[in-house]
Amino acid sequence: MIYKLLNSIDQARPFERLSAHCDIPCGIYDPIIAQIAALTVVRMIDLMTDLDNKGGEKNKDYINSMSRYVTIKEEHAEKAKAEIRVIWGDFLKAQHLEKYPNTHALVHQIMQLGSKARQTTDREAALQLVEAINQFAEIFWGAKNIPTKRAIAPYAPNLELVYPVL
Amino acid sequence: MIYKLLNSIDQARPFERLSAHCDIPCGIYDPIIAQIAALTVVRMIDLMTDLDNKGGEKNKDYINSMSRYVTIKEEHAEKAKAEIRVIWGDFLKAQHLEKYPNTHALVHQIMQLGSKARQTTDREAALQLVEAINQFAEIFWGAKNIPTKRAIAPYAPNLELVYPVL
Amino acid sequence: MIYKLLNSIDQARPFERLSAHCDIPCGIYDPIIAQIAALTVVRMIDLMTDLDNKGGEKNKDYINSMSRYVTIKEEHAEKAKAEIRVIWGDFLKAQHLEKYPNTHALVHQIMQLGSKARQTTDREAALQLVEAINQFAEIFWGAKNIPTKRAIAPYAPNLELVYPVL
Amino acid sequence: MIYKLLNSIDQARPFERLSAHCDIPCGIYDPIIAQIAALTVVRMIDLMTDLDNKGGEKNKDYINSMSRYVTIKEEHAEKAKAEIRVIWGDFLKAQHLEKYPNTHALVHQIMQLGSKARQTTDREAALQLVEAINQFAEIFWGAKNIPTKRAIAPYAPNLELVYPVL
Amino acid sequence: MIYKLLNSIDQARPFERLSAHCDIPCGIYDPIIAQIAALTVVRMIDLMTDLDNKGGEKNKDYINSMSRYVTIKEEHAEKAKAEIRVIWGDFLKAQHLEKYPNTHALVHQIMQLGSKARQTTDREAALQLVEAINQFAEIFWGAKNIPTKRAIAPYAPNLELVYPVL
Amino acid sequence: MIYKLLNSIDQARPFERLSAHCDIPCGIYDPIIAQIAALTVVRMIDLMTDLDNKGGEKNKDYINSMSRYVTIKEEHAEKAKAEIRVIWGDFLKAQHLEKYPNTHALVHQIMQLGSKARQTTDREAALQLVEAINQFAEIFWGAKNIPTKRAIAPYAPNLELVYPVL
Repeated sequence: MIYKLLNSIDQARPFERLSAHCDIPCGIYDPIIAQIAALTVVRMIDLMTDLDNKGGEKNKDYINSMSRYVTIKEEHAEKAKAEIRVIWGDFLKAQHLEKYPNTHALVHQIMQLGSKARQTTDREAALQLVEAINQFAEIFWGAKNIPTKRAIAPYAPNLELVYPVL
Repeated sequence: MIYKLLNSIDQARPFERLSAHCDIPCGIYDPIIAQIAALTVVRMIDLMTDLDNKGGEKNKDYINSMSRYVTIKEEHAEKAKAEIRVIWGDFLKAQHLEKYPNTHALVHQIMQLGSKARQTTDREAALQLVEAINQFAEIFWGAKNIPTKRAIAPYAPNLELVYPVL
Repeated sequence: MIYKLLNSIDQARPFERLSAHCDIPCGIYDPIIAQIAALTVVRMIDLMTDLDNKGGEKNKDYINSMSRYVTIKEEHAEKAKAEIRVIWGDFLKAQHLEKYPNTHALVHQIMQLGSKARQTTDREAALQLVEAINQFAEIFWGAKNIPTKRAIAPYAPNLELVYPVL
Repeated sequence: MIYKLLNSIDQARPFERLSAHCDIPCGIYDPIIAQIAALTVVRMIDLMTDLDNKGGEKNKDYINSMSRYVTIKEEHAEKAKAEIRVIWGDFLKAQHLEKYPNTHALVHQIMQLGSKARQTTDREAALQLVEAINQFAEIFWGAKNIPTKRAIAPYAPNLELVYPVL
Repeated sequence: MIYKLLNSIDQARPFERLSAHCDIPCGIYDPIIAQIAALTVVRMIDLMTDLDNKGGEKNKDYINSMSRYVTIKEEHAEKAKAEIRVIWGDFLKAQHLEKYPNTHALVHQIMQLGSKARQTTDREAALQLVEAINQFAEIFWGAKNIPTKRAIAPYAPNLELVYPVL
Repeated sequence: MIYKLLNSIDQARPFERLSAHCDIPCGIYDPIIAQIAALTVVRMIDLMTDLDNKGGEKNKDYINSMSRYVTIKEEHAEKAKAEIRVIWGDFLKAQHLEKYPNTHALVHQIMQLGSKARQTTDREAALQLVEAINQFAEIFWGAKNIPTKRAIAPYAPNLELVYPVL
């Protein structure tokens, strides 16, 4: 019964009409903000590992640095998720989802990877977050018919990011 | 090389490993926060309509009330979206998505309806937002094997909400 | 001169005139948001205790988890306080305070317990916070003439919450 | 029954023990932040009145200025309330409340006046908010045994504020 | 006397030592975030002008759109200022300021232009903000020895931005 | 063409035109907010040192207190920077900068000291932050032709602050 009601809403009108009005809110979407945020997550994990490797005392200086890294990692993982969610919800319309049918699953994966990046210090998961957002960036620029390239970001951790060719 | 790695993750086993760690973050998820937020959106539209119907002068008092309603509508539509996104990304796992295969599309619809509720004063869209979130609440409680009922919320605009039977 | 004016207001008829305009802002107040927040405080203390009981190394993973629990505890204790303060200041009027003369002291106690829940990891204080907010919820629903019941919340730490009977 | 439980909590232990630990969190409380915020509320109302008196067109420039004034008024009224709530909840203990038995009612009044300052453009209510917070400042400095004076604030709207004599 | 004390602090030690430790906080700075924010300011002014040109009724729909544009303009002007302030304060050191002696004045100008962009709907001031931030971007990339180019941004209002050549 | 325009503005007469409109935003600026924030930074460092000196176990209670101190230190160092930046960007005009030619360098130093206060637990740097903001306060009150005095703040850490003589 749940699905029937929804399906009726779903099939009959909303998506089409919503798409029709997409010009009004059309903000300035750019996945680079999420990409930079994801890079920052990796960077924080690297700084956390470095600090542990130094092997100093676990005193106020250790907590000061470590808990600041955690907070910054937290904020940027959250920012990455929020930015992707906005582009997904506000910019991508029925025609794009048809062209890129894996988008919903990719966005769900980004949410999960973003959460994992917050909950752990797993560098591998953070790299997967960067890459998943890169793939989302390729969908986004593809939806705007703008070609992309991959280049090394000009700051540590110097990972490959997807950029539009301007 | 990273790119390849992610594709393999993406296609073959995206969520299983992540699901395995779901107990650790398991917070206290409750869609009622999003449901109350969506009700508030409808309420603000009603107050905006009432104010226009009064027909007073368009002076500082009018702007004071109207722009406060817009801001509150804005914040609660955003809150509704954020809460649903968190439950979707952090709580719902592969097994739930299999049981409720329409979830991704429903969440995407909630994001779009939430944005429409911000961009317009369309009461119909706000009602659809309440209903879409109610349906999400049914999925959520279903995933937890807790039965639900529908009852009139004890505050204006007195719409039907989905509640768990406790 | 202002000073005199206020004294007269203060002593003679502090709330009556203000109460007269209470309908205009009448938003959608629901103590469940504060109740869920207080539960979350207890939950975080439980996770903190579990983590210490595991007895692992006090490295970046320990700080990552522990400082995230502290932050979430912090935010939810604050949210609980803020929500109660809003209902107290915006919804409760002279007639309610007459009917429930202990309200001011209860709210002050909630503020103190909320602060204690932030400053310590004392589970007993957090339980008192849940209970004090439950009692506030009973006053709130009583002021609206809606009966309440107590039921176990459908998520850990599975404590008793006050719910309206709808 | 509600009150019995609370009374037992209330009378038996919590306040005393809480007071005993008050040194640990003892931050740096200063009501001047709330006083400046309340002045700003008055200032915004003055700017709103000036703008209406100019009588220009009600176009984008009018909304740009007017809605910014509303937002700033909103934020500062809220800030005033939040600051007072913190000092009341975190600093004032049983012995202070005994010495100043009207404190709870004054704080409740500040919450109501702060809300009225948000909901309206009533300059008189905003002046009452400034004065109520001045009276709270006198209680606060009295609780610390620091004498106060009243002086005209060195910025528009040049109202009288309570200052500690240092 | 003021200046003597400061000069002694200024000349004797702090800048050098601070520079020496710049690696530790070295985050991931990128002026593109401020540049996108400044573009958004121009975009909002364009949407505000379009809405006025449509000439509809000044009712709830008008205020809903107009006050949302104001808020978004406000937030992005503020974000632009905050991002530039962070790069200026955290990244640029004595050696960079020597190489680009106009930097302090440029940053102060950005702060003023950002404020003007909030206070008015003056498109010319917003364009100057974009350009001033572009010039800051050239200084920033110059300080990192990375060459730049100018290209049209791939979204409305399609102004020229400074990009690093990667 | 834009580029040329800005260069001419930049070199020849950057601030005059902007200054002409300074009355409209003229808010209520008061450096006391930044001064209290800087004091709080010192206070947090003192509490962190005290906690380490107690020498207890490095368990959840230690992290709870220590990471809260870090967060509060972080927030207040940031608040100090933000408040100074606003007064510098919004209040100080060409004529003030002429009278106090060291202002830009002092503000840049405050930004650096504020960041150092976040990154470390160095009490000396925090004291320098307090003093640099005191010196900024002297410039601010000087620009308003209001004399100042120095007095011991009425709360720990009881450092000397600059106050206007009212």
